[in-house]
Amino acid sequence: LCDVIVSPIVSVDWRANGGSSELPRVVRIIDQRRLPTEYVERDLRTTDDVVDAIRTLAVRGAPAIGVAGAMGLVAALSAAPTTRSVRERLAETAARIRGARPTAVNLPWAIDRMLRCAAAHADDASLLDALAIEATAIRDEDRAACAAIGSHGAALLGALRDQPGPLTVITHCNAGALATAGIGTALAPLYTLHAAGVPLDVYVDETRPLLQGARLSAWELSRAGIQVTVMPDGAAATVLRRAERPVVVIVGADRIARNGDVANKLGTYPLALAARAHGHRFVVCAPTSTLDSTSRSGTDIEIEERDGGEVTHLAGQQLAADGVAVFNPAFDVTPHALISHYVTDRGVVHPPFE
Amino acid sequence: LCDVIVSPIVSVDWRANGGSSELPRVVRIIDQRRLPTEYVERDLRTTDDVVDAIRTLAVRGAPAIGVAGAMGLVAALSAAPTTRSVRERLAETAARIRGARPTAVNLPWAIDRMLRCAAAHADDASLLDALAIEATAIRDEDRAACAAIGSHGAALLGALRDQPGPLTVITHCNAGALATAGIGTALAPLYTLHAAGVPLDVYVDETRPLLQGARLSAWELSRAGIQVTVMPDGAAATVLRRAERPVVVIVGADRIARNGDVANKLGTYPLALAARAHGHRFVVCAPTSTLDSTSRSGTDIEIEERDGGEVTHLAGQQLAADGVAVFNPAFDVTPHALISHYVTDRGVVHPPFE
Repeated sequence: LCDVIVSPIVSVDWRANGGSSELPRVVRIIDQRRLPTEYVERDLRTTDDVVDAIRTLAVRGAPAIGVAGAMGLVAALSAAPTTRSVRERLAETAARIRGARPTAVNLPWAIDRMLRCAAAHADDASLLDALAIEATAIRDEDRAACAAIGSHGAALLGALRDQPGPLTVITHCNAGALATAGIGTALAPLYTLHAAGVPLDVYVDETRPLLQGARLSAWELSRAGIQVTVMPDGAAATVLRRAERPVVVIVGADRIARNGDVANKLGTYPLALAARAHGHRFVVCAPTSTLDSTSRSGTDIEIEERDGGEVTHLAGQQLAADGVAVFNPAFDVTPHALISHYVTDRGVVHPPFE
Repeated sequence: LCDVIVSPIVSVDWRANGGSSELPRVVRIIDQRRLPTEYVERDLRTTDDVVDAIRTLAVRGAPAIGVAGAMGLVAALSAAPTTRSVRERLAETAARIRGARPTAVNLPWAIDRMLRCAAAHADDASLLDALAIEATAIRDEDRAACAAIGSHGAALLGALRDQPGPLTVITHCNAGALATAGIGTALAPLYTLHAAGVPLDVYVDETRPLLQGARLSAWELSRAGIQVTVMPDGAAATVLRRAERPVVVIVGADRIARNGDVANKLGTYPLALAARAHGHRFVVCAPTSTLDSTSRSGTDIEIEERDGGEVTHLAGQQLAADGVAVFNPAFDVTPHALISHYVTDRGVVHPPFE
């Protein structure tokens, strides 16, 4: 079940330390700000490196940020001058990394787990090794969750594929390898099916305003050899309307309420409406940690509004008239009634989630 | 009914010739390629000027192109060297302008009308004046149609506004003054209501890939003093979902089939689905010339696919991964069942249109 499929790319990991007997201490990330035009790896060695990478979205995607934060804490504690002990520097370094993106849920979760590990480990001499092992465990658990979502999702999608020939899939934003330490969430079943030789025809919403679909999902899927077509977000309804065979729409989730309502990247909800209008499946993939027991329904989920400049400007170019107001919610809420299946690391589940 | 409301901008007109007794001969357009960051007027004096302006979208919007083509024919015939007569140069000049954008319907319609005028006018000495008068008539008829749509639409929207306070409106793409010689089609009722003192709160879809909403509609509406909010196309469903009072979605049309199905800018159909999901009105505004008696339903309307570079690149910046396929239909089809009202220059009409 949890066999790790080889990911087409690894967004965050230790930098291999060339046969040394020491545990690795340097974090290597793919700099996602440079994609899709440049593939650049960056080493994170100091607290500043880690905070900067998370704050500037060099590393992004909630699971990937959690892993980068935990591993980055180890790197930062290894790199700093040694006049103060690792344990003396722990709280302040952890606080700085945790504050790099205050709204992400996985980052404080991972940092808290590292602090609990340190509190439970009395031997100061081996504290860094213990923290490195804990950060590696966080990475490996994320990889395993992705692989499990991949397996469960692939079984589901395989069963929905009723004829030979490629399975047509639509996805939105990037819930892929770049957003996790493993093979992603929504894209995991696609990698798993592709590895099994199932032909796929994947349409990717470009996903305005930040274009994670065009920039990131299209990049990682095509790099893996999967057939990818990018389209404006408004074109998905036409693909769903014209399809002569079942299409599967598959997306990730930022938060899932107890009744099954899903907060995910802006544009997910109109995509779900279009899938329903034409009788196609709408599948949400997420680790069980995304289930939010404090939200009874989608109306309890607060939606972050982001800076209007994301909409009005791109790469220094002004796209909209001067001085107009902007509505730029980061997420929208898709009601559970529009969602066919929820795929988690524990299998396909159904609301209510208690 | 047909009183012309003063347009906030005039996208195409004659260049005033300063008190001369001659009829004006030079066409003045707003160069829409420079908006929203620069307001630049261009004079069209030669056949090359006219063809280039239409081909490069300096002037765009089907009605505006028709007017620019007719008036541009007069300019081109006035400007050319006079070794051959106006009548000798007519057919070839008309053919070149007509070919500037072969898919637009209004351009060949306007040029054909100019040729019929010339054929009916036997006196060569006054031929240019006759053509200038005909082109002016085409401009004025377009203005009158816009004004009539504005009046009929304003009456409809006024009746839908059930409480004091601003009427919330969503529009898509640019069916405004920039797309016509007058006050637009979908935006005409908004200008008319605004002139009557009705407060409006207008949300504009940015309209990927070419961003006519953010670039053009937001510019002309805000210039007229109307409250405008730009948003990614995927955000409209959230506005419709959250609204506590009726919202009116109002769009133009590129072609309307006999059963009422509407081809309009990509992204119109998912917007109509979202309006329906939340019980809001979806209004289509178009001159009666947009009714296409040769199309029985939307499935008879051929949808132009445009270059993928419109999606993958913006202002020289690469937005999508190298070498991926692109699906970039110019239009989509909204089925008549989702359309609440059709506002034309002859009033509010209902399908079937025979």
